[in-house]
Amino acid sequence: MSNFIISPKQGVPFVSVQMMAKIIKSYGVEQCLLKLVDALEQDFLRWDEFEKSSRYATHSKDGVIELMPISDGKMFACKYVNGHPINTQRDLQTVAAIGILSDVDTGYPILLTEMCLLTALRTAATSAMLAKQCAPKNAKTLAVIGNGAQCEFQALAMKAVMGITEVRLFDTDPEATKKAVENLSDSGLKVVACNSSDEAVEGAQIIITCTADKRNATVLKDELVKKGVCLIAIGGDCPGKTELDGNTMQRADRVIVEFEPQTRVEGEIQHQSEDFPVIEFHRILKGEEKARTSDDELVIFDGVGFASEDYTGLVFLRDLIKDQADYEILDMIPQQSNPKNLYSVINNT
Amino acid sequence: MSNFIISPKQGVPFVSVQMMAKIIKSYGVEQCLLKLVDALEQDFLRWDEFEKSSRYATHSKDGVIELMPISDGKMFACKYVNGHPINTQRDLQTVAAIGILSDVDTGYPILLTEMCLLTALRTAATSAMLAKQCAPKNAKTLAVIGNGAQCEFQALAMKAVMGITEVRLFDTDPEATKKAVENLSDSGLKVVACNSSDEAVEGAQIIITCTADKRNATVLKDELVKKGVCLIAIGGDCPGKTELDGNTMQRADRVIVEFEPQTRVEGEIQHQSEDFPVIEFHRILKGEEKARTSDDELVIFDGVGFASEDYTGLVFLRDLIKDQADYEILDMIPQQSNPKNLYSVINNT
Repeated sequence: MSNFIISPKQGVPFVSVQMMAKIIKSYGVEQCLLKLVDALEQDFLRWDEFEKSSRYATHSKDGVIELMPISDGKMFACKYVNGHPINTQRDLQTVAAIGILSDVDTGYPILLTEMCLLTALRTAATSAMLAKQCAPKNAKTLAVIGNGAQCEFQALAMKAVMGITEVRLFDTDPEATKKAVENLSDSGLKVVACNSSDEAVEGAQIIITCTADKRNATVLKDELVKKGVCLIAIGGDCPGKTELDGNTMQRADRVIVEFEPQTRVEGEIQHQSEDFPVIEFHRILKGEEKARTSDDELVIFDGVGFASEDYTGLVFLRDLIKDQADYEILDMIPQQSNPKNLYSVINNT
Repeated sequence: MSNFIISPKQGVPFVSVQMMAKIIKSYGVEQCLLKLVDALEQDFLRWDEFEKSSRYATHSKDGVIELMPISDGKMFACKYVNGHPINTQRDLQTVAAIGILSDVDTGYPILLTEMCLLTALRTAATSAMLAKQCAPKNAKTLAVIGNGAQCEFQALAMKAVMGITEVRLFDTDPEATKKAVENLSDSGLKVVACNSSDEAVEGAQIIITCTADKRNATVLKDELVKKGVCLIAIGGDCPGKTELDGNTMQRADRVIVEFEPQTRVEGEIQHQSEDFPVIEFHRILKGEEKARTSDDELVIFDGVGFASEDYTGLVFLRDLIKDQADYEILDMIPQQSNPKNLYSVINNT
């Protein structure tokens, strides 16, 4: 039972938002991102060991609720996550995520955690991992279209992992850009607030689109996406929720995805034919396929977020808190002396 | 946002095992079961309002981990549950379940809870709800084959709902039977410990099989299942995990299931042809089909447990704790003043 942080008889470790914020701050955001990229790469390299499935999604008028389960036969991970862009108008998070990690051998949960912050980290680390393989050499300038909850994490990941020195920001909501500029002011990055996506992509070798609108939008006009760019499109992640012009997808020299069956339903390629060519990222990491053959190509990552990334994030967190005990313990599983005597739990209260 | 127990900005209510035990004890097990049967019936009557799917299951050598999501467009419920019969040898629960209820409109969780005890209650209430429709008139004697964690709950549900006066117990583990006898000693039921399933079913109009072995077993020889019986088979609930002789299934006048697509994979009918006739229970409750046309028939409930029953259990619990505040509050979702400023949660720690 080596997966357990504490004995399964003691309860389930729980990492709250405050605890998570403290952990990330004490390790440093960029340090966490660097380590997460390493961990993601290790897990993508053993892609075939995971039992994979497209996520479960239930759609409603203003949002979606999803479950993202995965197992490698040793540990099982699952994220509960919603996506409700309308929530910001209600003073609530667009995304409110919870993660659970459990031990496959016993079926017992070994970790329960907030997963808004952890998702932001793993999503940014995933983008940086992709950029490592897909960006042109010596990329120094990043454009981020969509300056909401994900923006700063994406920028810092590209700084830490790719050595980006300048980030150009645009959002249809100027307040969002202002917030991101302030948050990144002492990051060491040159931060440029732009008035349009046209201005934002000027000179950028890496472009990230991370907008939240739940509809088919075009946040980046086709003519703005030049050759020689790595375009990381991660805001389109639901049926009917995309960010790019179909022509941009058609022009790409290569489109990279995480788990093809899920991306066919949720990604930018939902608007393309069923046989639109894509490459699963693990194949690039393993050297089975090339992400880019010259610095002049347009390479697009059609990212929707996959369960294995949450698995990596949860195991990363488990390892972080193992020694520090940065968690509460929840009384979540009955612990009576005779396992068959569940009834005694009530009677002996 | 009427689904919320507390404001979504305050955190997520959590009901621990100890809290759940206290709640059930203070209301009374039988009272809880009676109310749950009412609630289950109300929800089965509006079957068509639920977005239903077969549960997700990942199987390993000694067990299974499952996710059971469902939504009625207002609330979303999901249970994480494992099934590891081997766990009792490790002094752990066979089943360690966690439940989450959320508000579809915002996607925010509104309740997180232990779900071992709640599952035992909802499973027993489901059996009693079935027996109300499927048992012969004036059933007074119940046989329970398998005296593990579910046994006492099943017996008390049949007493409270069906007016059963005698329960006859058998388990291959005599200690399990002894435990159940002791727990039921002051229940008002006549409790008979039996040395075989043959002895247990003597005179019983209702037979419940609730064994935990993860294999195809025959816990009840075909000749022991007479006409005039309502057989509630709930221990077989996985591919390769069944309890009955195939002939018994063939002899049944009617086989009732919860959600047919899931039961075809997991239930006793996994060993029958794809067109083996079954009736979904909601149709019986709505009066569209008969469960029984005479007291001489053999009616079998091939129960595997369905997500709607967990939904009912979670909403039932939410209503119970609404006024009493029998919960903790978990810091699970970031609550910073600007929802788009997720990064500030780290910086302001």
